[in-house]
Amino acid sequence: MVAQVGQAAHRVLIIGGGFAGLYAARQLSKDERLTTTIADRRNFHLFTPLLYQVATGAVSPGDIAQPLRSILRRQRNTTVLLGEAVGLDPARREVLLADGGPLGYDSLIVASGARFSYFGHDGWARDAPGLKSLDDALEIRRRILIAFEAAEREHDPGRRAEWLTFVIVGGGPTGVELAGSLGEIARDTLRRDFRSIDTRSARINLVEALPRILPTYPADRSASARRQLERLGATVRTATRVVDIDDHSVTVERADGTRELIPARTVLWAAGILASSFVTAVARATSAPTDQSGRIEVQSDLTVPGHPEIFAVGDAAVQPWKKDRAVPGVAQGGIQGGRYAASMIQARLSGETPPPFRYRNRGDVAVIGRLAGVTDIPWLGPFGRQSGFPAWVLWLTIHILYLIGFANRIVVVVRWAWSFFTRGRGSRLITGAPLLPPIEEPEPPA
Amino acid sequence: MVAQVGQAAHRVLIIGGGFAGLYAARQLSKDERLTTTIADRRNFHLFTPLLYQVATGAVSPGDIAQPLRSILRRQRNTTVLLGEAVGLDPARREVLLADGGPLGYDSLIVASGARFSYFGHDGWARDAPGLKSLDDALEIRRRILIAFEAAEREHDPGRRAEWLTFVIVGGGPTGVELAGSLGEIARDTLRRDFRSIDTRSARINLVEALPRILPTYPADRSASARRQLERLGATVRTATRVVDIDDHSVTVERADGTRELIPARTVLWAAGILASSFVTAVARATSAPTDQSGRIEVQSDLTVPGHPEIFAVGDAAVQPWKKDRAVPGVAQGGIQGGRYAASMIQARLSGETPPPFRYRNRGDVAVIGRLAGVTDIPWLGPFGRQSGFPAWVLWLTIHILYLIGFANRIVVVVRWAWSFFTRGRGSRLITGAPLLPPIEEPEPPA
Repeated sequence: MVAQVGQAAHRVLIIGGGFAGLYAARQLSKDERLTTTIADRRNFHLFTPLLYQVATGAVSPGDIAQPLRSILRRQRNTTVLLGEAVGLDPARREVLLADGGPLGYDSLIVASGARFSYFGHDGWARDAPGLKSLDDALEIRRRILIAFEAAEREHDPGRRAEWLTFVIVGGGPTGVELAGSLGEIARDTLRRDFRSIDTRSARINLVEALPRILPTYPADRSASARRQLERLGATVRTATRVVDIDDHSVTVERADGTRELIPARTVLWAAGILASSFVTAVARATSAPTDQSGRIEVQSDLTVPGHPEIFAVGDAAVQPWKKDRAVPGVAQGGIQGGRYAASMIQARLSGETPPPFRYRNRGDVAVIGRLAGVTDIPWLGPFGRQSGFPAWVLWLTIHILYLIGFANRIVVVVRWAWSFFTRGRGSRLITGAPLLPPIEEPEPPA
Repeated sequence: MVAQVGQAAHRVLIIGGGFAGLYAARQLSKDERLTTTIADRRNFHLFTPLLYQVATGAVSPGDIAQPLRSILRRQRNTTVLLGEAVGLDPARREVLLADGGPLGYDSLIVASGARFSYFGHDGWARDAPGLKSLDDALEIRRRILIAFEAAEREHDPGRRAEWLTFVIVGGGPTGVELAGSLGEIARDTLRRDFRSIDTRSARINLVEALPRILPTYPADRSASARRQLERLGATVRTATRVVDIDDHSVTVERADGTRELIPARTVLWAAGILASSFVTAVARATSAPTDQSGRIEVQSDLTVPGHPEIFAVGDAAVQPWKKDRAVPGVAQGGIQGGRYAASMIQARLSGETPPPFRYRNRGDVAVIGRLAGVTDIPWLGPFGRQSGFPAWVLWLTIHILYLIGFANRIVVVVRWAWSFFTRGRGSRLITGAPLLPPIEEPEPPA
């Protein structure tokens, strides 16, 4: 199955086609000493930083995803495989797939990422979907739009308010961007679409357990993000954790122990991460240490302790950075980790020993609604700390540059330019289960 | 719920937001004597003529669909409602929704369309999905792409051939355009993406029960379409009907009674139509006559016999045209029927009696693969009968002009221009169930 360029070629197997896996494969592109196989259970690479834009209807799924086969079609030494890795036999150097025979390797790069952690409350997943995959984004888009539709048809003020209340759990970049985007939709995009409700009356709540949102940013950036969210009408609750979720409400607990019940029909989850199940399988098979999220504690060369032929990168690993801090779970972390692991494999084939992995912080950008945001880009000096409109422009530039696929870039720019000028959103389609939940009390005949 | 502009306003209720329903609503746009409510179980209008392009990955769902609320947001007399109509009480003049109270009306326009008919073999729907909705298109796209992925991983030549064999049932415009598009994908788009299979060896079979494909076109256009499909490598079987379908094969029967079993993993259905279940409910409640597809046999003014206040238009009705022929089930039929019904309502309010409905045939265009097609546009004279590249250009122009939403038009043009020059397809994402069916015989360890 795996095309082998001669018997002697070094076989690199990459599990996962996210940022870490894809950039590892690209790094190995022209190296004729090896063959690369990249396996993913999806057939596409997803530009996850824009996933919340799919969830809020600004762009289409096809705009931020590109088939792995297309991206890698010119790399003749690379095979793309659709399949889910479920197990590892480190002694035989084989990865087991859920739906096919084992894949052998000489070097393995584990880049299968992470998903959201419900902190042991897996039952919450039904009422509070997380935003990790394209299918998640479409489900969240469906729920958001259905909520406004249901509010439009609801006569009881209390139940209408429930439909117009949104809770986002987690004040990291995903939660902040989701909240900002939702605020923008409610205040601007949908405003003139409905006849019975004022969409601006929607209440958007962002709940964060830590004392401030965007905890990986400097404190003044967090404060600025909070102000910008509040200007969009969102309510930010920090030092507050979620203790219960059902289909009508969220219960939160403040640091002082007081509790509050927020009646809300739409809850979105953007808190905590948990390593993918393949990472857990790798850790078990190699007896590797993991952190509380299940990510592998790799060595300074990103290899699994005791297994120099196995690398763990991106969200699958705790990539070392500063002495008290790991590389954050952002695209850059995956890109740099993946490239490093690939170049390590190449260096070994050349008999070299490269220096340990060193993360270069390129900075963070989060966008808040239509024209605002915060940035923290250390290497730009004071210029790297922007708020509001300049932050939004920086964000736009960076994201368009990193988006894979030239046609996608044009299409996304067209969509944004269009929605910018019209304040509309082109992709507000409800796909999947089409219907509203039944209205609890039938309205009297007109 | 329904905003009423004064008590005296005439209440028009439109069920269905396809071509017929949408153009009826637009016709009523500025008429202050009436209020319009348009209800659909989807929140968007779908440009169905391009649905096969979503199914084959050329465009994204968002490119060919637009929320009804956005399209109609400026029509202050119009309310959009997300809901599924399930019953009619003609005496009380009320439509019942699956998930809410009844909707009253003074005039009703039934425009809830049709779906595919499996001719009594409803069990075939599982193995041979039809192409009517956006979700259908995504499911078909998933199956087509999974088939190539499965073939890439399959070692047994027989089973690999099964994965690379596609059967399309129905030689109308949808079937022909699907077959052409699939031929193009296999010969061009995917060619360099795979390592183990030659996608050009894919076999595409088009099966039509009538003696020729595109039976509503003139005979020479049918012959030209057949030649163009065969040039793309497709096999066209006419006067052949499907007698059985399972997940591994299709059995067909020729006019002479001989049977043939075609081993194929991917079967797509584009044959026969059946009125929607709301149309059936309307026919039952009004004792209206229906044709064998369940469409209502309307009078010359498109009203249901005995109910001058109820119109049935588009695919919900047998709209009269020539004495031996009804209006074909194309977008133009819906647009003209919907507009006529709306203008009838307006004329009545003015005390006028307009002439009976008269269909103006604007002609037909079908595209076959990347640069070919056939047209039959009577009013253009000899110029209206094109084949090959000129037909494709005509088709492109017409479709872009009729696509609703300006941003969509630009985006679709960008996508097409891009895929034209690169021979790529931007939207080849497998969403939904991500995994391949298990491979039947595990391959030996590498």
